[in-house]
Amino acid sequence: MSKFFSEKYKDLVPYTPGEQPTEFRYIKLNTNESPFAPSPIAEKYAKDAACDLQLYSDPECRELVKKSAEYFGVDADEIIFTNGSDDILNFAFMAFCDKNRPAVFADITYGFYPVFAEFNGVPYEEIPLRDDFTMDVEKFIGINKTIFIANPNAPTGIALPLTEVERIISSNPDNIVVVDEAYVDFGAESAVSLIHKYDNLLVTQTFSKSRSMAGARLGFGVACKEIIQDLNTVRYSTNPYNINRMTMAAGIGALEDNKYFFDNCKMIAKNRLWTTNELRRLGFTVLDSQANFIFAKHNSLGGEFIYKELKSRGILVRHFDKERIKDYNRITIGSIYQMEALIETLGIILEENK
Amino acid sequence: MSKFFSEKYKDLVPYTPGEQPTEFRYIKLNTNESPFAPSPIAEKYAKDAACDLQLYSDPECRELVKKSAEYFGVDADEIIFTNGSDDILNFAFMAFCDKNRPAVFADITYGFYPVFAEFNGVPYEEIPLRDDFTMDVEKFIGINKTIFIANPNAPTGIALPLTEVERIISSNPDNIVVVDEAYVDFGAESAVSLIHKYDNLLVTQTFSKSRSMAGARLGFGVACKEIIQDLNTVRYSTNPYNINRMTMAAGIGALEDNKYFFDNCKMIAKNRLWTTNELRRLGFTVLDSQANFIFAKHNSLGGEFIYKELKSRGILVRHFDKERIKDYNRITIGSIYQMEALIETLGIILEENK
Repeated sequence: MSKFFSEKYKDLVPYTPGEQPTEFRYIKLNTNESPFAPSPIAEKYAKDAACDLQLYSDPECRELVKKSAEYFGVDADEIIFTNGSDDILNFAFMAFCDKNRPAVFADITYGFYPVFAEFNGVPYEEIPLRDDFTMDVEKFIGINKTIFIANPNAPTGIALPLTEVERIISSNPDNIVVVDEAYVDFGAESAVSLIHKYDNLLVTQTFSKSRSMAGARLGFGVACKEIIQDLNTVRYSTNPYNINRMTMAAGIGALEDNKYFFDNCKMIAKNRLWTTNELRRLGFTVLDSQANFIFAKHNSLGGEFIYKELKSRGILVRHFDKERIKDYNRITIGSIYQMEALIETLGIILEENK
Repeated sequence: MSKFFSEKYKDLVPYTPGEQPTEFRYIKLNTNESPFAPSPIAEKYAKDAACDLQLYSDPECRELVKKSAEYFGVDADEIIFTNGSDDILNFAFMAFCDKNRPAVFADITYGFYPVFAEFNGVPYEEIPLRDDFTMDVEKFIGINKTIFIANPNAPTGIALPLTEVERIISSNPDNIVVVDEAYVDFGAESAVSLIHKYDNLLVTQTFSKSRSMAGARLGFGVACKEIIQDLNTVRYSTNPYNINRMTMAAGIGALEDNKYFFDNCKMIAKNRLWTTNELRRLGFTVLDSQANFIFAKHNSLGGEFIYKELKSRGILVRHFDKERIKDYNRITIGSIYQMEALIETLGIILEENK
């Protein structure tokens, strides 16, 4: 730390992203990436855009906004694009939380929420999930704080039914409810359909997972136009050109290839079911996931032990060193070949540690 | 504005980027883009990276950092990459300014500085440039605030000699001096050579202009490792994956093709000289620029009039509606063909308005 670092950040503990090794080709099941390449149309458009990099990208993202508004059945002024969905989540903490408007979220959820809160000097409350890791919805009813819900939740994969999400939104009319749907396309119900009914709802999504574009950095928010306007005020006060030309083009291409996207989501759901059954057969407790990952603990071996054993054998999963979930690992659903390798390797580890 | 927008932002006036028209192919001399395509190596690497978009980019940017550290003769922990240089400038306002550590910059300089200050709740002082638009260096000596200097300055193009920059740095040991070198490659002296001498110096640069990558969004900062560490704390608390795979690859490619970059910078300097002489012949006052743009006013026609006349004839330049500089236009130096078209069109406008 330099002696110039602002007092307000002196105790800040930044987010720790999953490992991104370059030295060795792991079977990477640790950061919820898609096992599938991006749509060939997305790839083609991105490559075409690489020829014109000397020109700034369109800060209004007009074509991308138009295409996605059509896809979601909303107006162009009801969508904002950002540099990954972390960007829009951070914007939401900036725009809709402050000392007088604290944040609230589950104790077990996306680990970036408390970091965003700390970074922006926002007081926050963490409401414990129930013992079965489902959300304690009653505790969020009329809570009078800015609410962040990951749905499906991470790292559990458990989805909240839309009727429950709506109960939270309608009971908090004076506060924004942010529904973070990074993983919604793999089986949960989206709240986008509610944005014309509630002026306090912001839905965030990303092209990282279901559209195979983690490396392109493209997230977005859908909400009533006043909320989008506020988020654009933040965007134009920090980094108006936050989407580069290639990513913008890839996003447009991905939206022209929805069949590819739907087929990939179906394949992930199929592989998730197969992997869940196999893990249970091996003695794992696996939470019911609607995401492209599963959260699993073994009935005799510890979470960190399994993580390390898998890593030493070339398979990366994500282990969180947090008391309530330290017996678990979060395992990304990859291709069926990756899943077979995982199950086979776990079988060997279990055999060796009987 | 929604009723949920935080009090602290209610009066915020965001930055206004230059026009990015899509409807018509203008000769675009309004946002200081390069007239040259990116290096063929940069383009190739970006295209190759488009095939692997399903994987996250390396948040540590290891290869990019290594290549650029070699280029600048600094250590890997003395460089940080960001999503354009706006990103790192915003980080600097966040990290090194607050209510107790105000910012200071010239009254005529990059228009984003006051926006960053307002956005981050940082008090700031604007020190007037002298009548000839040069910097009043004495006023910055020992000023005891976080100093932002664009060198060369925008929109004037005037460069401050490195000895003068160093006087400011050495006289403010308790405050960070940010030297924003977005345009340095076109003829000014970089302060990067001073980072091992001063622990209060942060130099920011960008691949947008001299390396023809405005549409890729790649900026960076060079400083002692403690400063870089602080900036990384901010980055990892907001958006650790802020550089996408394609841009990262393009940046690596650009750094492998320095001859292309040097040749383009030389060509811009040559076209700048030609354009300056031609404009002076037509009755313009042109400030001495070391950037890829010039700042010019005519001895009889107004700045806004010329801007509008040029636009109606298909040439975009940048006009700022600010009292001290309203007679001027900022004109990007493009290819010699674009410059010839500009001079010819201005000749016609002057002829018609004698």
